[in-house]
Parts: sequence; C-alpha cells; structure tokens
Amino acid sequence: MYKINVGLIGFGTIGTGVVRVLGENAGVISKRLGAEVVLKRVADTDITRDRGVALDKGVLTSDSAEVINDPEISIVIELVGGTGAAKDFLLAAMDRGKHVVTANKALLSTHGREIFEKAGEKGVDIGFEASVGGGIPVIKALREGLVANRVESIYGIINGTANYILSRMTNAGGGFDEVLKLAQAKGYAEADPAYDIEGTDTAHKLAILINLAYGTYLPFNKIYTEGITAVDPLDIKFAKEFGWRIKLLAIAKAAAGGVEARVHPTMIPENHPLAAVDGAYNAVFLRGDAVGSVMLYGMGAGMMPTASAVAADVVDICRNLKKGVSRRVSPLSYCDNNLREIALKDIDDIELPYYLRFSAMDRPSVLSRISGLLGAHNISISSVIQKGRKEGGAVPRLLLPITPWRGK
Amino acid sequence: MYKINVGLIGFGTIGTGVVRVLGENAGVISKRLGAEVVLKRVADTDITRDRGVALDKGVLTSDSAEVINDPEISIVIELVGGTGAAKDFLLAAMDRGKHVVTANKALLSTHGREIFEKAGEKGVDIGFEASVGGGIPVIKALREGLVANRVESIYGIINGTANYILSRMTNAGGGFDEVLKLAQAKGYAEADPAYDIEGTDTAHKLAILINLAYGTYLPFNKIYTEGITAVDPLDIKFAKEFGWRIKLLAIAKAAAGGVEARVHPTMIPENHPLAAVDGAYNAVFLRGDAVGSVMLYGMGAGMMPTASAVAADVVDICRNLKKGVSRRVSPLSYCDNNLREIALKDIDDIELPYYLRFSAMDRPSVLSRISGLLGAHNISISSVIQKGRKEGGAVPRLLLPITPWRGK
Repeated sequence: MYKINVGLIGFGTIGTGVVRVLGENAGVISKRLGAEVVLKRVADTDITRDRGVALDKGVLTSDSAEVINDPEISIVIELVGGTGAAKDFLLAAMDRGKHVVTANKALLSTHGREIFEKAGEKGVDIGFEASVGGGIPVIKALREGLVANRVESIYGIINGTANYILSRMTNAGGGFDEVLKLAQAKGYAEADPAYDIEGTDTAHKLAILINLAYGTYLPFNKIYTEGITAVDPLDIKFAKEFGWRIKLLAIAKAAAGGVEARVHPTMIPENHPLAAVDGAYNAVFLRGDAVGSVMLYGMGAGMMPTASAVAADVVDICRNLKKGVSRRVSPLSYCDNNLREIALKDIDDIELPYYLRFSAMDRPSVLSRISGLLGAHNISISSVIQKGRKEGGAVPRLLLPITPWRGK
Repeated sequence: MYKINVGLIGFGTIGTGVVRVLGENAGVISKRLGAEVVLKRVADTDITRDRGVALDKGVLTSDSAEVINDPEISIVIELVGGTGAAKDFLLAAMDRGKHVVTANKALLSTHGREIFEKAGEKGVDIGFEASVGGGIPVIKALREGLVANRVESIYGIINGTANYILSRMTNAGGGFDEVLKLAQAKGYAEADPAYDIEGTDTAHKLAILINLAYGTYLPFNKIYTEGITAVDPLDIKFAKEFGWRIKLLAIAKAAAGGVEARVHPTMIPENHPLAAVDGAYNAVFLRGDAVGSVMLYGMGAGMMPTASAVAADVVDICRNLKKGVSRRVSPLSYCDNNLREIALKDIDDIELPYYLRFSAMDRPSVLSRISGLLGAHNISISSVIQKGRKEGGAVPRLLLPITPWRGK
C-alpha cells in the first residue's frame, strides 16, 4: 500500500493523542484514505517520560531537526505551542517543502501572515483544524461546506475553561474565584488561567475564524476583548430572571463600514441553541446568506478530540499527496491573491443593547436621576428591575438592563 | 479566469435556489475557488414558468440531453428527484464522463450501489451533501472532518416536517391530525405527507449516513422504520412529566454482532442538545471514538439552505478540476475496494428501554397483573406513574414507562 511518512514535533498531551489516534485507528484511516499513514519520527525535549503509548524504537528523538530534515517525511505536525520555537519549526519545515499541520492558535493569530505567506511561496499545505473548537470540523465547514455563502455573522463559545466556569456559576452557583479554583482542581483551568478567563484565547480563535470568513490576516490584538473575571453571581441571577444566559462569546459580523469583531460576556436568550452549550463544550453558531443558521457543537479541547482534528488535517493532505497535488483548497479559504486587509469597526462605533447594574442608596428619586442621566446621553432603556432592600443590608440594588443581544 | 461549465437538470425549488446562489454569490465563490463557475444550461420540462430569477437567453432548455451531451459541461447537477428519470440522467451524465451532484436521497438509498459503482467505473466525482440535512455540511464532516474516527453512534433529527409536527405538539399542544393540517397550511408538510410522517424520508437519509460511517451500500428498506402517526398528545405530556422530549430519530450504532439501524419516535432527555432542535431545524449528533460527541445543526430543507450544499459540492469538484484530479475523496468515505456488506442487527434482537402506556379499568390489582405479566416475560420496570380517574371520565390511565433512551 502507498505510504506517507509523517513527523511530529511536540509530544505533550495533544501529541500523545495524535500518536494514539493514528495508531489505534490506523485500520479505519487506511480503509478510507487508501494509503498508510506512518508516524516516522516524534521529537520532544523530554523523551523519557512514559506517555502510556507505544512507539517503535528509533521513532523518538530530542532533536526536532531530525524531523524537519528527514527527506522521507512529507508532513510535519507542530504541537509545541506558543509563538517562539513553534514558529521556527513551522517555517523551517515549509522551507524544506514539507506540508504542515498545527493546532497553534496563538501563533496563527499573531504571525499568521508570515506563516501563510511562507506556505504559499513554498506551495505547501497548512492544516489548522485543531486550532479552533478542538475536534469540531468548523474550519473545514467555513472553507468548504459553506463555501458558497457570504458569512453574515459568527457567534462562538470557543473557550472551554471560560464556558465551564460560567456554566458552573449558572447551574450550581458560586462566585467567580471559588468556581475558578474548582475548575483548576478539576483540570479544566490552568494554574495561570489568564489566557482563558481574560478572553485572549477566544480572541486568538476568533481571529482565525474571521480570516477564513472574510479572507484576511487579522491579528488577534485588533479584536476588542473583555474576559469573564468581572461577571458577578448577581449578574447571572438577574440574567436568569430575564430569561438569558451569560456566555463568553466570540462575535464577528459583516456590517456596513467594516467587520465587527469582539469578545465579551454576552447575554443570550435561554432558548437559543448556544445557551444549552454547557461545561467544557464549544460551539460555533454561524449565519450564511444562503444556508441560514448553522451550529457546530462538540468538545473544544482535550487530548483525543483535538487529535481527531489534527489527524483529519493529516489525512486531508495525504489525499492531496496521493493525487500528486497540493493547495487544492486555499488555507484561508480565499485564494492568496484575494486576501486583503479588512476594515474593523471600532468598538466605540458599535451600537448595542447593554446591561447595566447599579447599587444605590435607597433614597427617593435615585431611579429617576439615573434614567435622566442615561436619557441625557441618548441611551434609551428597554426594561428595568428594581430590587428592594436585602434583609439586614443597607444597600438595595437597582437594576437597569437595556435589552441584551437578541440572537440575530 | 479559469471557467468551469455546469449544467442543471430540474429547475424546481432547489434548482431555483442553485441558480440564485451561483449568481448572487458568484463574486465570493470565485474569490475562494480561483475560478468562475458558469451555469451553461438548465433543463426542465417547464421552461415558461417565472421562477423570479434571471437566466441568459439560450440557457434554458426542455431537453435534458442538451445538458448531458454538451461537451463543454463538466458537472451535471440533478435536482429532478425520485428514482425514475433522475437515475437515467445521472447514469447517462456519468457515462459521458461528467461529474455529478445530486440531492436525491431516495435514489441514493435505493439504487446507491449502481450509481456509486458507475461513478467509480467512470472515474467521476459524485457530490450529495444536499441529500441529508439540507445545508448542514454533515456528509463532508463524516467523510473528511471526522475521518480519523470510528463512528460509534449517530442520532439524527433529519426530517423537518416530522420535527415541526412533534415540536408544535410539544410546545403549543394539539393532536397529530390537527397539527399535520397546520403544517400543510404553512407549507411544512406536503399534501401527501406519508413520506415524511411515516419515517421513509428519515430512513433514506439514515441509509446514506450509515453508508458513509461504515463503508457499505445499505438500501433504506433494510432499516426498521416507524413514523410519528401514533404519537398521542398524552405521550408527549407524560414524556414531559418525566423530563423527556419525543423526537423522530434516525439511529445508527456500531454494536457487537452488527450495526443497529432504526427510525422511530424516541424519548430523549430534555437537557440533551437534540431536545432543543425544534421546528423545521435538523441536527445530527454523532459519537466518534476520538472526537467524542459532535452535533451539526441547521436548516434541513428549503430552497437556499439546500442550494448552499449543492453549490458546495460543485465548488468541491471544481477544486479537483482546477488541479486536474478526480476522486480525491471516495464518495462513500471508504475506498471502493473497502466497501463491504455489513451485518445489520435484527430489530427483535435489540434490547432497549421502552415506554408503555396502558388504559385500564379502575379495578384493584390492575397494576399488579400488568407488572406480573411483564415480569413473566423478563421485562423489568424502571418507573411507573399511575394517573387517577379523569374528572367525569370512566377510564383512568395507567402509565408504565421503562426508562427511555439515556442519550448515550
């Protein structure tokens, strides 16, 4: 049978998953592909730790150059992560004519232009399905399944840690700090959770989705990003009273005057399909002008789901190699010569429903003064709840929510 | 720019959608594809009716042979439907070396083997994304995005008519006949609704999903099929009391001793993602051994969503044509030489939780006699509700549900 040699750099959790899925499912993969995928070399700085998977002797190396420079290897998988060595590995592999697969959203949303231009220049394929939504085939959907659509909007729950924390606060109660500690204890949050809870990881992934939807190289730091650290159990409680759920959403919208791109906690109606996406699950809800609403849902992280996406990219490239072609589909959906800079709308120019919560002294005319101030600034009020004095409490709460996002 | 000529046979609702999407989104399609898709000929028996879309003079013909025999046409789209003329058109087009695209689930699940073998013999591509789940890219997901997975199970809500009726009975009440009439008035059900409400259409689509998941040519009539005509408002009411929703599910499971394949009304937990799939929406919930649970959700029918899928197939084939290749991905996911007959489990050999509803005279020991009979047949009871005498009614109801499907 036709054989295709693959090399892997980065033998951590996802790397171990890739070794497992290519080994355990070799049978079904070769029956579908009509070729054998051979994992020829695996490089990692730690080659002694037992990952619980068997590798033939001579496969493991501590020298990534032995993967990159191996003339028999056609596809290099980069699972090192970060924007340092990973970038060098990818560029070096492409320079040697290797096709590459990566799950590295930080790298692609920071140095995407350089990486994708190198792939174009060298005529190699670059797969990155695992960079957004773990095992959910959302990148393939944007690039192929929905290729005939203008993408009107994208709403994504694409960070499992943040979604776990908000879901837990909603369903079981508890304050942010307490639930974060629980998430860390359960392995759903890193010891340093900043990346996830401050929205950075979500912005990385949104940048990649926007690049695919609109044919551009948007760096993630152009995206307005607000995390979930300020979400109070009271906000969740009040949202529930109004029939809403609070989710950290990645939002992109094609709008007059540019694309809206933002990451922030958002109230969504409790009967919206995204509202039911709980725990570590991810989902991307898209609107295309022809297809209407589409949602893709699944595990957004984890060893085996992410490895499923990496392996799918490998098979995709193998299907090209078998036919002697490359770059059959442009990596960013649009042909390279049709990629262009897009105008992003400034967050200050975006008009949105907004939710405001005030704590005020229980004195007459507080509400009228607040609403008067809002009116003076041309902000209209959709609905108001005023909660009375808490037992024994001195500070009653006043709630002024302005209709939140309607799920359009 | 590189041009690819496409012909269309069948200018009905979906055909009109295809003309629209290829026209209205020609710009974005060519930017992504790097080629122009030209709709050269459109054939239909009715060439006078105004479909509200503009076609250049000379495109429309009443003779399908003018599409099939046009040497400049590379891809023929068949949207005639049914298993008669449509089959002849597809076979004739493939005989002339054309690649084909179809939305015809009845044809593919009845004469699939003949159609797919012809495509293999002629070395042409056959796209059928629109045959299951309308615009949802579920076939591409099974064939490519989840290619590295063994498919453990598939649960699909893949008939919009049946789902509309059950959703309406659940959310607004009403008996089956009454809600069916409403669905017909709203255009969600055909004048002859048998295909949809008796589960046949669902079985057609399930056969296609099974063929992709397990590499076979299963004709739909091997699938145990039960429609929704016997679902009573009482069943829906009792299901709700237990925290379940009733949906018409297409179910496939890889099991010891063969694949389970069945279509029937099923109780699913109200917090399962499928329970929220309401109205005319479709969803396919899959479990892969690596990826875990994945759900794809969207409009399962309708002019533009279905056209979105047809156009995606056209672009997929154009991407091959541009590179001078064909059959890069095997139509049924598995390479032709790896397709094989699969053993289906007989419905009588499948052990399942089941729901039973009895109406009985209000006499002592009725419950004990029923449960005794069940016990004598080795059927254990998970939970029981006995409802008392209805006001003024003579026949009290006795409910013996045996725990329904657990969403595994």
